[in-house]
Amino acid sequence: MPAPQEDLPVQFRTIIRVEFCDTDMAGIVHFSNFYRYMERAEGQFFRSLGLTLVTRNEDGSAVGWPRVSSSCSFKAPTSYDDELDVAISVYRIGVKSLTMRFEFSRGDTLIAKGQLKTAYCLFKPGEPIQALEIPESWSRMIQDARADSTAS
Amino acid sequence: MPAPQEDLPVQFRTIIRVEFCDTDMAGIVHFSNFYRYMERAEGQFFRSLGLTLVTRNEDGSAVGWPRVSSSCSFKAPTSYDDELDVAISVYRIGVKSLTMRFEFSRGDTLIAKGQLKTAYCLFKPGEPIQALEIPESWSRMIQDARADSTAS
Amino acid sequence: MPAPQEDLPVQFRTIIRVEFCDTDMAGIVHFSNFYRYMERAEGQFFRSLGLTLVTRNEDGSAVGWPRVSSSCSFKAPTSYDDELDVAISVYRIGVKSLTMRFEFSRGDTLIAKGQLKTAYCLFKPGEPIQALEIPESWSRMIQDARADSTAS
Amino acid sequence: MPAPQEDLPVQFRTIIRVEFCDTDMAGIVHFSNFYRYMERAEGQFFRSLGLTLVTRNEDGSAVGWPRVSSSCSFKAPTSYDDELDVAISVYRIGVKSLTMRFEFSRGDTLIAKGQLKTAYCLFKPGEPIQALEIPESWSRMIQDARADSTAS
Repeated sequence: MPAPQEDLPVQFRTIIRVEFCDTDMAGIVHFSNFYRYMERAEGQFFRSLGLTLVTRNEDGSAVGWPRVSSSCSFKAPTSYDDELDVAISVYRIGVKSLTMRFEFSRGDTLIAKGQLKTAYCLFKPGEPIQALEIPESWSRMIQDARADSTAS
Repeated sequence: MPAPQEDLPVQFRTIIRVEFCDTDMAGIVHFSNFYRYMERAEGQFFRSLGLTLVTRNEDGSAVGWPRVSSSCSFKAPTSYDDELDVAISVYRIGVKSLTMRFEFSRGDTLIAKGQLKTAYCLFKPGEPIQALEIPESWSRMIQDARADSTAS
Repeated sequence: MPAPQEDLPVQFRTIIRVEFCDTDMAGIVHFSNFYRYMERAEGQFFRSLGLTLVTRNEDGSAVGWPRVSSSCSFKAPTSYDDELDVAISVYRIGVKSLTMRFEFSRGDTLIAKGQLKTAYCLFKPGEPIQALEIPESWSRMIQDARADSTAS
Repeated sequence: MPAPQEDLPVQFRTIIRVEFCDTDMAGIVHFSNFYRYMERAEGQFFRSLGLTLVTRNEDGSAVGWPRVSSSCSFKAPTSYDDELDVAISVYRIGVKSLTMRFEFSRGDTLIAKGQLKTAYCLFKPGEPIQALEIPESWSRMIQDARADSTAS
């Protein structure tokens, strides 16, 4: 990742509790679950702003935020019943895409750092997915959010 | 389950290899994965008959086989890299619903026995899910299938 | 299921929020996730009593509650962002096993009813899983718990 | 990713069929599943060489390949029943770590490009995870493998 997340303001914080089924036979959280954790935190962030990850319309179309790319570095293992603090920072908002960074920690221990790049898109059955411009009021709301306290 | 599966003919057989991410920190397959395994085997059975678990239409509606109920008994543990033999038997085909039984074994060891009851349904955005009659030609095809050999 | 859950006292209540990745292309929660939801609720119930679904020992062994059988009936569809109320009732506590029932509802709508039968067991690497007697103080605690309010 | 994968030899090829439960309500594969697909392909590659993703020892310890980092770019949507060709290229083998790249395509359509960096490690209950040197014979085997044909 090109720049240290520490320099970015934190837009949202939440807590994720590791579940039993998230572990694997090595006794730690399976790495694929961190991507689901990022999405859960992102969904809570969006909900706190009155936004949603996906909205299905009555005509069968939907608008949502499919992923352009995702990445995660795993710094320390974590396991069942651990409580992870998740901090979301907006790294970049473009006209049609949004890049967010996620830092997972357990107490003072950094567990993982991840990134999601998403695009605002229209899904119509039988047609290619079509990128849309992010409404400017949303971009402002997302960028200006500040994590004062931990949401649950 | 009310009757021994052993008395039913086997309509389809396949093999499922246990993956690393299917295990949990107790070192065995997490029980929820057996339901995904049943669905995978069911999908292969349907595909072998030219059917599909779900078809999305251009108008945004879809027809498919949502589950009415499911159950599974776990007889012996299984873990990463094990090859499981799966046998599917049709227990009952009604006008709108289908009940299939699944037996998982590893060599001579019975691993699990499960059941899926599904209904043939229409999904229309903004409307309740609507049960449809299973086409009679399909019911016959499903009931008459016989597992001669193992599919992959 | 042999008896109506409604006649059983409720030992624990919690809320589960449906996540985006829990949905499938039919637009509803994939049925396999209800088993993960049951386990999450069970884990919260256990934690409220000071118990845990699994404990790993330093010698590599573990004690936990593997599943003997599980089942679920799906009464109404549910989708992304829905908040589900979960009620847990103890159906039966035996010497080595525990059967719990789970009722999922969204407002006044019954979504699903499920059941988990689990056994208290010792896992030792390289040895068969061994059923243990449930400590009597735990059985009493589990049976006597009463859901006064909703935990999170 | 710093260099085009196209310049790297392909060490292993396999095919992954998209399952129903891998889709989400947008009608496409949920992005987190590509990480599971990479691991499945990696496990098949390892198995073809006589290696394994994890081995549990009788004393409760285990040796395996936990992930240091992972990433994926999503180029085109894919959905239920699609057959994806997966090509694995070794990007770098170090003394203790291994970086592999994965290209997913459906016919001529590039679907996704991903990367896993893993380390060879010892897991001992109650002790920190400890990185081990990759046996030199394994490094050679992994680097020298050539995908002649598609494995299943």
